[in-house]
Amino acid sequence: MSSHERIDIQMPTFGAGIWHFGRYVDRYATDGYGPPVSTLEAIDLAGQVGELSVVDMTYPFDPAGLGVDEVADALKRNNLRAIAVTPEIYTRRFSRGAFTNPDPAVRRQAIELVSEAAEVARRLGCDYVKLWPGQDGWDYPFQVDHSEVWKLSLDAVRELAGTFPDLRFAIEYKPREPRNTMVFSSVAKTLLGIEEIGLPNVGILLDFGHSLYGGESPADAARLAMSRGRLFAIDVNDNYRGWDDDMVVGSVHLVETFEFFYALADAGWEGVWQLDQFPFREDSVEAARAGIRVMKTIHRALGLVDREALAAAQQAQDALAAQRIVQRALLSAGAGR
Amino acid sequence: MSSHERIDIQMPTFGAGIWHFGRYVDRYATDGYGPPVSTLEAIDLAGQVGELSVVDMTYPFDPAGLGVDEVADALKRNNLRAIAVTPEIYTRRFSRGAFTNPDPAVRRQAIELVSEAAEVARRLGCDYVKLWPGQDGWDYPFQVDHSEVWKLSLDAVRELAGTFPDLRFAIEYKPREPRNTMVFSSVAKTLLGIEEIGLPNVGILLDFGHSLYGGESPADAARLAMSRGRLFAIDVNDNYRGWDDDMVVGSVHLVETFEFFYALADAGWEGVWQLDQFPFREDSVEAARAGIRVMKTIHRALGLVDREALAAAQQAQDALAAQRIVQRALLSAGAGR
Amino acid sequence: MSSHERIDIQMPTFGAGIWHFGRYVDRYATDGYGPPVSTLEAIDLAGQVGELSVVDMTYPFDPAGLGVDEVADALKRNNLRAIAVTPEIYTRRFSRGAFTNPDPAVRRQAIELVSEAAEVARRLGCDYVKLWPGQDGWDYPFQVDHSEVWKLSLDAVRELAGTFPDLRFAIEYKPREPRNTMVFSSVAKTLLGIEEIGLPNVGILLDFGHSLYGGESPADAARLAMSRGRLFAIDVNDNYRGWDDDMVVGSVHLVETFEFFYALADAGWEGVWQLDQFPFREDSVEAARAGIRVMKTIHRALGLVDREALAAAQQAQDALAAQRIVQRALLSAGAGR
Amino acid sequence: MSSHERIDIQMPTFGAGIWHFGRYVDRYATDGYGPPVSTLEAIDLAGQVGELSVVDMTYPFDPAGLGVDEVADALKRNNLRAIAVTPEIYTRRFSRGAFTNPDPAVRRQAIELVSEAAEVARRLGCDYVKLWPGQDGWDYPFQVDHSEVWKLSLDAVRELAGTFPDLRFAIEYKPREPRNTMVFSSVAKTLLGIEEIGLPNVGILLDFGHSLYGGESPADAARLAMSRGRLFAIDVNDNYRGWDDDMVVGSVHLVETFEFFYALADAGWEGVWQLDQFPFREDSVEAARAGIRVMKTIHRALGLVDREALAAAQQAQDALAAQRIVQRALLSAGAGR
Repeated sequence: MSSHERIDIQMPTFGAGIWHFGRYVDRYATDGYGPPVSTLEAIDLAGQVGELSVVDMTYPFDPAGLGVDEVADALKRNNLRAIAVTPEIYTRRFSRGAFTNPDPAVRRQAIELVSEAAEVARRLGCDYVKLWPGQDGWDYPFQVDHSEVWKLSLDAVRELAGTFPDLRFAIEYKPREPRNTMVFSSVAKTLLGIEEIGLPNVGILLDFGHSLYGGESPADAARLAMSRGRLFAIDVNDNYRGWDDDMVVGSVHLVETFEFFYALADAGWEGVWQLDQFPFREDSVEAARAGIRVMKTIHRALGLVDREALAAAQQAQDALAAQRIVQRALLSAGAGR
Repeated sequence: MSSHERIDIQMPTFGAGIWHFGRYVDRYATDGYGPPVSTLEAIDLAGQVGELSVVDMTYPFDPAGLGVDEVADALKRNNLRAIAVTPEIYTRRFSRGAFTNPDPAVRRQAIELVSEAAEVARRLGCDYVKLWPGQDGWDYPFQVDHSEVWKLSLDAVRELAGTFPDLRFAIEYKPREPRNTMVFSSVAKTLLGIEEIGLPNVGILLDFGHSLYGGESPADAARLAMSRGRLFAIDVNDNYRGWDDDMVVGSVHLVETFEFFYALADAGWEGVWQLDQFPFREDSVEAARAGIRVMKTIHRALGLVDREALAAAQQAQDALAAQRIVQRALLSAGAGR
Repeated sequence: MSSHERIDIQMPTFGAGIWHFGRYVDRYATDGYGPPVSTLEAIDLAGQVGELSVVDMTYPFDPAGLGVDEVADALKRNNLRAIAVTPEIYTRRFSRGAFTNPDPAVRRQAIELVSEAAEVARRLGCDYVKLWPGQDGWDYPFQVDHSEVWKLSLDAVRELAGTFPDLRFAIEYKPREPRNTMVFSSVAKTLLGIEEIGLPNVGILLDFGHSLYGGESPADAARLAMSRGRLFAIDVNDNYRGWDDDMVVGSVHLVETFEFFYALADAGWEGVWQLDQFPFREDSVEAARAGIRVMKTIHRALGLVDREALAAAQQAQDALAAQRIVQRALLSAGAGR
Repeated sequence: MSSHERIDIQMPTFGAGIWHFGRYVDRYATDGYGPPVSTLEAIDLAGQVGELSVVDMTYPFDPAGLGVDEVADALKRNNLRAIAVTPEIYTRRFSRGAFTNPDPAVRRQAIELVSEAAEVARRLGCDYVKLWPGQDGWDYPFQVDHSEVWKLSLDAVRELAGTFPDLRFAIEYKPREPRNTMVFSSVAKTLLGIEEIGLPNVGILLDFGHSLYGGESPADAARLAMSRGRLFAIDVNDNYRGWDDDMVVGSVHLVETFEFFYALADAGWEGVWQLDQFPFREDSVEAARAGIRVMKTIHRALGLVDREALAAAQQAQDALAAQRIVQRALLSAGAGR
């Protein structure tokens, strides 16, 4: 076996949110950045990337009525596995809130949609159901009683996790967007909520970009979540620290992306290295390959770090020594093919 | 005539972008925050507000084929006048750029669409054509030759302003969104470009929120543009200084909104007080009324400022004295009906 | 007794950090923004304000050797009480960290200095010892093992709180400055730490400005801390959301300052309304009076809020209704004398 | 001659602000992050770095009375040249403004101090006098008449540049700090002012970090200044995009630092690669070496870029292609010794 093959074998599992391959819309290009993409088409695009092993599937599927079996078949023929299902609790009917909607009937619809998605997750053999209640929060000062929306959020997650004890629920926190402030806005606040919920099957999906533009150090956030056994999954991408730009991994913050993966490796975390990029104006297959290429560089660089020296530098909190060690690894890792 | 009526007569002209009354979409609620709203329906909603005199009309109208006469009629029956036309040079075909698109054919389409809009502006008797090239810029480091996109931007505006010397073109600058960086990103950069263009009929539409989250002091930005005779129009709204949240006027930054209007009044600027709010989750008519109510408060407060004392405080750069004077006016202006 | 006097009696207790009256230095005006101010001089300045009842005293006193009795006398003759002692664990010897310093001997010095300060707090009859470990954190990616600095921080606070069970320790969190990232950086992270410490006499001092520029809603942060019985004290000031500008209260964010105090009042919190302003270029006595004047406006406005209507608006999450109610109160409260 | 030597010969000239080697103070560690460092000691430290050729000298020298000849001697024995003199127009007497101070007598003092510094620059044979009016601006809404402080700023620079037509004056713009807003806050605003001044010997010192945390793309800012022949000098460092952290070059934003130097090289700009780092808690000589090591990496990487391919990618605005090309160069450049 050649050394090249050995390296390939050691590579982490790569994944992506299926929306990476979908059609983007925003408030200006209301006709979309491209033509519509159905769920099956998106799966085929994910398959074209060639190095993805898993995808996180949004639910409901598109078009409405598309069956789980058809999705399972499409995944299979593309050598993909569904690692998670993400119920879309942020579309029009949930635009004033899902778990925190002022209308109890809409809150119930949110629970029901997640429950449906959980059933799909069981059938697809997923690792977790992702909860991203992006419409839960507030826009204006004085708009809500913050204690009330907090309570509603925890109650909903507790109910879901209690109803599906065999499944894991990963909350993806985010500072803002589409709401001006989200309820689950930071790693620490989400951990507080999870501990208040008090169930073992609730954890965190840590999105590198959310952490970064939320003012956290993503490596620190990861360590905090891991120290409590709550880091269920990660997503990576990049941004300019002011908004969730969902750019290609490493395109801006190479060093901190490297630090993030170093923290994961150092703690023995062995989950999927998963893309959450929004290539509005780029080819989605090529953008995924670009992100994976950078992740491979980082993976190689991890192998080049003098860990003993770095541990000593960190023990001494010696920033200059730490940088020297890290740059030696990163700047000779090569960009790959 | 009662003193109350006198105050009403002195009120400024209020306006709004017609999109205030449209349907919002974003990358999550891709099915929209509400049902579609046609151009005529939006005009009728603007009419319902009751205190709007002018609107800024996006073009093309919706549905396609709707004629200028029908629009003019709808405006008339709602006692509205079109103050401006805003060509939509930021939809799908322009998603990789309008004036700066790498494809010369698309750049030409952008010029043509603006030219059409300029003809419509003539027919509607507008004060200006608004240019908001929101897709012109870049997303990634190394993506563009910045000199080239700058040149393309100036060339396009120069051509348009030269072709329609009887019309005024107001560039609305914005730091970012939908592009990660826009070419016309700040008041000063836009003024530099306008002076390089060298034509009298190009100016600025200063959006209070864009200025605020771009790190400017909107009052300072207004004074700079006015000092060069280039402040053609303004839009107001509010945000949390990190993004273009397009919230209701004064909902967060009452003091700086007051300072902005004070700077305009102090320099004798007499344009329209115009709303650019995006009430995603609110009733659009009520949101417009809320913004106007705040603008009326500010207008009353302007009348209560001890201008001589404030000038003396500013001459001495005495922040505490200035605040005291200003708060006396603002905090007794009342919220209005 | 007139209604005017009744209102005065109901006023909250006002306080200030004694540093408000000190001499400011920064990295540019290294010769200071004014002449040195000793501890006793600062107390006399605090006394001149006329409406302060309590002060938070930094320790050690200046000049070195100044006794607790002399300080107590100075406070007494100015009708002031020491509400807290703040040990200066952020000067040169602690510049690479206090509780998290890589050198165990310096960590010990930090514990010892806080212990001394705790003894002083006992003698002065303070309500709490404030812990602001501003040098504890990191500056660079890869500089520290985040788990290690977290552990060191919790261990130190646990030791202190265990050693002085009769005293309360209030951790003042802050996102950054002087360290690029502080360990206790947000309300939620600090609450996580406090619960991990597991002692009843550790809580939070919530600085409005720190919360604001940390991306929190200060009202939400306050409610979260109160819900767990950990809101020991507050400081107020203002900033532009990007840095700890420590400006005069309400000079920028009147509405959110109002919301913050509303949340406190709504939960029945009855602590001191305390200033943490840094009037670099202003007269410190006048700046304190300006902050108090705004706090009195807010206190009056609290009395004018239609609480039933606001509760209903918040129940419906109706932002426009909530604003209308709140603006009615605030904009007719008057600026006061 | 070996290829290794050839590369060394082609290296750019490296420089540093002399304050890099001084003593740091801030508002918390008021006793400084280390012992005082005199001007001559700082020069000797700069000499120890071993790869610096030029330094930017703050004036007045420390201690007061230190002569220009002594400084010149110290520079000479350390193989250093003074590239610039930076008058300290930001200390206590200028804390309410230098060129914009409300007191005309203080404004005159500022002009006089810069004039003295200009004479020193002549004697030392400097390339330029640096103007960094960090105290010129405002802190609060309504504090100043923005037109007035703008006029005062331009008048002062015009007077100085007119008085010393044989010298060049480089304005270093910065968004904020120590003032909450500086008058010369962005590249575009400074260029507007320079063109209004109308003299050939006024230009810009572009600090990479100021540009970055001001929301600019530093590469774009450089191109704009170069296109008008006004880029007199540059400083480099790094930060987290929210504040002027003055960290070691490339420690956070490797990619954008690379893009910045690429833009300079592409336009044929041949000035000094100059450090403006503030190593508060690090050894200043080692921190300079670390910055230079990264700049050498970038210089090597510049030589590895496939410029033709990059030009084609930029012509097509193809972000993915551009990244691939750039990463190939950067990630194989090595970290150096």
